[in-house]
Amino acid sequence: MKLAFIGLGVMGYPMAGHLVRAGHDVTVYNRTAARADAWVSEYGGRAAVTPAAAAEGADIVFCCVGNDNDVRQVIAGENGAFQGMKPGAILVDHTTASADVARELAAAGAAHGLSFLDGPVSGGEAGAVNGKLTIMLGGDEDAFDRVKDVMAAYGRAVTLMGPVGSGQLTKMVNQICIAGVVQGLAEALNFAQRAGIDGNKAVDVISKGAAQSWQMENRSSTMLAGKFDFGFAVDWMRKDIAICMAEASRNGAALPMTGLVDQFYERIQGRGGSRWDTSSLIDLLQRP
Amino acid sequence: MKLAFIGLGVMGYPMAGHLVRAGHDVTVYNRTAARADAWVSEYGGRAAVTPAAAAEGADIVFCCVGNDNDVRQVIAGENGAFQGMKPGAILVDHTTASADVARELAAAGAAHGLSFLDGPVSGGEAGAVNGKLTIMLGGDEDAFDRVKDVMAAYGRAVTLMGPVGSGQLTKMVNQICIAGVVQGLAEALNFAQRAGIDGNKAVDVISKGAAQSWQMENRSSTMLAGKFDFGFAVDWMRKDIAICMAEASRNGAALPMTGLVDQFYERIQGRGGSRWDTSSLIDLLQRP
Repeated sequence: MKLAFIGLGVMGYPMAGHLVRAGHDVTVYNRTAARADAWVSEYGGRAAVTPAAAAEGADIVFCCVGNDNDVRQVIAGENGAFQGMKPGAILVDHTTASADVARELAAAGAAHGLSFLDGPVSGGEAGAVNGKLTIMLGGDEDAFDRVKDVMAAYGRAVTLMGPVGSGQLTKMVNQICIAGVVQGLAEALNFAQRAGIDGNKAVDVISKGAAQSWQMENRSSTMLAGKFDFGFAVDWMRKDIAICMAEASRNGAALPMTGLVDQFYERIQGRGGSRWDTSSLIDLLQRP
Repeated sequence: MKLAFIGLGVMGYPMAGHLVRAGHDVTVYNRTAARADAWVSEYGGRAAVTPAAAAEGADIVFCCVGNDNDVRQVIAGENGAFQGMKPGAILVDHTTASADVARELAAAGAAHGLSFLDGPVSGGEAGAVNGKLTIMLGGDEDAFDRVKDVMAAYGRAVTLMGPVGSGQLTKMVNQICIAGVVQGLAEALNFAQRAGIDGNKAVDVISKGAAQSWQMENRSSTMLAGKFDFGFAVDWMRKDIAICMAEASRNGAALPMTGLVDQFYERIQGRGGSRWDTSSLIDLLQRP
């Protein structure tokens, strides 16, 4: 199938590569052209100079960029994907962005005879590289049915959650859960250290029961060792929490713990931890 | 082996029963004598009129009561277990209590030639009934080696965490993790409902990734349905958090999220939810 991929960041680069390996004809666009050239050298395919040019003739255009404004620009802005797409084509946005921007772009696309699906992912860089992302989508069932098999190239679980925006809302549910789990784990492991308990041994014992979590199984030992130079960065988490907060202010959901954790992440940014993994919440407790 | 079990509550009743089924000679004591009689009718064994009488001649005395003061009374008080125990016998306290009371009772026991292990459990009523509790212990390795096989009657994982008090401290680590996980899940599921997302479907998707937790897999559907008449009661969780807070004030660990969640549980008590499951945190968000 003829495809385009816009945005070759940590996630987009390997995702677009999986599409080539699955046998598709892929044209990419990246703001920094050198990275697009490197991608072409690695995977084949072609690089275009604008999102519109990349999208020309494509059946499906994928996008994975930074935030709401980036999404608006590369999709609906000047020389954006919508300007190049043929009628009936589908745009799938993998950026974690607001549900509002998803609804806005779906309406703009519909005016041009184009379909739009919001499809944020979870699974991180490792999931993108291994092709095992979880993809939660919002949009029309027809459009979803036409893209889901293509996304299987990098998605282990590909689920239509509801109308446009539902993918983003589900990703927000995910991030709110993570905020609570990581803060609880940080307080617990710092407590263990100060109480003279072997944190790794405690985790071995309690991870068999009601305190168990993916974060406990995958982040405890690095938290205890003070290693945060990997994973999902604090800056990205704050961007996602801001999206949750904005949506919550519309739908009336209270997020007291999430708001508290956001303040902690702000303090981590203030001590130079913008690129640290989200598990760095423990650093604030260890060095208040 | 000749054993005693003091405290036939929701946990102790089935735990003591497992000891009989494993072939031991068990004498029980319970403050409300009728419940001890019911236990004898169900399992055989004998009931004694005081903890001291129950403990007479026993190689190991188990205890599972309510709080620090209950523990002090039935073990070291008048007609407490220590008064009946023979030199060289071991007391294992399964109550979730403070590390301080564990150290205090270990010292008092040592003065009489008795060993003391703190051994709080996790796994809840179901774990006690099915004999699949996780038991985290603090105390001497010699004493641990002499009791661990006996506890296998109701413990799936039986671990010595360190010196006396270490079992209690590990249980606190467990409860702090749970506070964060449950509050995150409550905020996330309430957010999902207000955003018009199918919460159960969202959980199916996100439980494959970094937001996954035991609480998500075992409590989401009941939280979404508003069912809280089961599980680990808010009153018990507040008792445990109070123990964590007191210990943290000694060891200097900050527990900002745990303290916030404790305030939420206090509000749940205020609306009549003292016996609701800990997952009832979502009720405060749904009906603020």
